[in-house]
Amino acid sequence: MAGPEYGGMESISEGACLDLLGERGIGRVAVSIGTVPAVFPVNYAVLDGDVVFRTTAGTKLDAAVRRSVVAFEVDDVDPLYHEGWSVLVVGRAELVTDEALLARVARLPVAPWAPGTHEHVVAIHPAVVSGRRIVQGRPA
Amino acid sequence: MAGPEYGGMESISEGACLDLLGERGIGRVAVSIGTVPAVFPVNYAVLDGDVVFRTTAGTKLDAAVRRSVVAFEVDDVDPLYHEGWSVLVVGRAELVTDEALLARVARLPVAPWAPGTHEHVVAIHPAVVSGRRIVQGRPA
Repeated sequence: MAGPEYGGMESISEGACLDLLGERGIGRVAVSIGTVPAVFPVNYAVLDGDVVFRTTAGTKLDAAVRRSVVAFEVDDVDPLYHEGWSVLVVGRAELVTDEALLARVARLPVAPWAPGTHEHVVAIHPAVVSGRRIVQGRPA
Repeated sequence: MAGPEYGGMESISEGACLDLLGERGIGRVAVSIGTVPAVFPVNYAVLDGDVVFRTTAGTKLDAAVRRSVVAFEVDDVDPLYHEGWSVLVVGRAELVTDEALLARVARLPVAPWAPGTHEHVVAIHPAVVSGRRIVQGRPA
């Protein structure tokens, strides 16, 4: 149901959002650490409809995503005209422990951390997907 | 107090974080809409140490930032090597209503929305500023 939503923005259909999600490689995960919100950039891929990324074991991000509901955002915004789009996914994050699934993630373009680093793979199962195009004012 | 924090990341001093914050023009605001986290890209500037941006009146973002504690993140991550930095600001967001301050914001490189759009200016007062450099693994 794409169409004008309010001045300066229009919504993007869920199907188009999922297409856009597959186009990018870096997104931002928003989590709550206690009661404090935090955002981290991650290198991600889409696998079976889930957003998957690696995180370093023992970090705040690793602790925060364990079975939490998180937000994941990707965008492409023109730095000059500030136009573009953003897609927001909200869903539960889970550690991936299945060996077959981990082997498939290993073949995805999701960069590993430095050699010797302990890391986890996290999957976000999208419960809500939404998106909007951002249209800014330009000189007439 | 920059230095190695854990494998793959090192922290950035607060002073260096504030310098990096001044370098970028697009960041992401994380808010809670009810109990659901959400992230939106915004075109921002720094004014008297506050992060300022415009939002369209009546949107979810506009409602969510009203006197909420929000997270604001900027980053610069290399899409090929996935290295870079991210800076996270947490603080209370407030609508700017002071006319003199609004006049100063009008002179900043913060793009207005489309003509005729009702908009608000929001300032985030940083309570906590932190940052990290992200170092990923590369082939030897």
